[in-house]
Amino acid sequence: MTNSQKLILITNDDGFFSRGIAKLAEVMSRLGRVIVVAPQSEMSGQSHSITVTRPISFKAEKDMPFECFSVDGTPVDCVKLALNKILPSKPDLVVAGINHGCNASINTIYSGTMAAVFEGCAEGISSIGFSMFSHSKDVCLDFVDDYIYDIAQNVLTKGLDKGVCLNVNFPIAEIKGVKVCHQADAYWNEEFVSKQDGDEGEVFWLNGVYNLRDTSDRADYRAIRDDYVAITPMQVDFTAYKVLESYAERFDKI
Amino acid sequence: MTNSQKLILITNDDGFFSRGIAKLAEVMSRLGRVIVVAPQSEMSGQSHSITVTRPISFKAEKDMPFECFSVDGTPVDCVKLALNKILPSKPDLVVAGINHGCNASINTIYSGTMAAVFEGCAEGISSIGFSMFSHSKDVCLDFVDDYIYDIAQNVLTKGLDKGVCLNVNFPIAEIKGVKVCHQADAYWNEEFVSKQDGDEGEVFWLNGVYNLRDTSDRADYRAIRDDYVAITPMQVDFTAYKVLESYAERFDKI
Repeated sequence: MTNSQKLILITNDDGFFSRGIAKLAEVMSRLGRVIVVAPQSEMSGQSHSITVTRPISFKAEKDMPFECFSVDGTPVDCVKLALNKILPSKPDLVVAGINHGCNASINTIYSGTMAAVFEGCAEGISSIGFSMFSHSKDVCLDFVDDYIYDIAQNVLTKGLDKGVCLNVNFPIAEIKGVKVCHQADAYWNEEFVSKQDGDEGEVFWLNGVYNLRDTSDRADYRAIRDDYVAITPMQVDFTAYKVLESYAERFDKI
Repeated sequence: MTNSQKLILITNDDGFFSRGIAKLAEVMSRLGRVIVVAPQSEMSGQSHSITVTRPISFKAEKDMPFECFSVDGTPVDCVKLALNKILPSKPDLVVAGINHGCNASINTIYSGTMAAVFEGCAEGISSIGFSMFSHSKDVCLDFVDDYIYDIAQNVLTKGLDKGVCLNVNFPIAEIKGVKVCHQADAYWNEEFVSKQDGDEGEVFWLNGVYNLRDTSDRADYRAIRDDYVAITPMQVDFTAYKVLESYAERFDKI
């Protein structure tokens, strides 16, 4: 099979109209047939949520520089609908992004971008998320093409291990290199901003300060700050294997 | 510190009014001071989503058999708001549930219940999720008290390893015992149900068939089906450590 026959599903959580997804579609079209199935509005922070209380729909978006469908749902809805109702066949690759905002360390868990990647991975498809270390909608995306191409090409050619997907984060400055990383230990120290609302009384806007606890050489967040592309292999199995044996001794009643 | 001084935060994704959370609050009140901070409406399938596009608010719910606050947000919003704006101090334990529906295997990733548990865990607090192997709102909850008490008591006394939380799932039949498990490999085979909607055209209701690929003895889903309480230790670090070294050889450019 030549590259031109590969089928590549692209999604994101910023919406089908974002600059990041356009760049990703542009690069991916060099590797195969690209179909974009993405939310019709911004879905940041939606994590792995699915729409179960109402039906969802999709429509073809004309006047786009790529084949594109928008969905009135979450990134995970997009992947599910694409695989089952939109794509002509099972894709060879699911890619999400380029996200406007870092999805390293603890941010992974809130990310709609990485949720779409986990969903593709759970369906047994090679899946990669790409994110930029900046929330700016105007961030420069010109220097990431070759990195995206090389990583996606590598994955299309060699595959990924079963149950493993990639979380790729780009620095905003000149790239020094590429590092395979682990998810850095970090947390958000919430600082809700309270406001008086006429009807509701006191309301709270979620805000927070990011706290990085792990600054080791291969911690993803650190690598990005040091201007490396961080590739963090991730898995959809959340089992804490390192404690399985000791917890069996502690809790088992068989 | 005696048990009566322990502070226990309880949340869920079914809403503060659910039978499951009432049962959990009842059992937990034997272990310390219980404060319930839970969604004001059902939030199933919301995973780790957070509310960032509008402010959230909470209110005290009177006429409840426990101290209770409802939040117009997701389970993760509840934990964040509780820790920062509602509780008098950092809790000794975060518990979520009892969820009406199984949160074993791949369901973990969609679960608002387990998202709340992951959030507590990321904040460095011992956290446990409890779920029933039935979506029925009328499911019998009478036989789980002692198991919940024992597991929570054990965790309050001995703690959990850093970055590790517990995902506990109950069978619906008579309990044979307790097994520490791993997350079973499984996936949902989606079968969208399509309908014609006057305004929207064709719309799709998410539906699916559950496929269990892993039926080994310690697979959580299998253990529950075999009438064991399944305790799956989980972690908020999604790194696929098993492939780190080989992927570094494959992708590193340093």
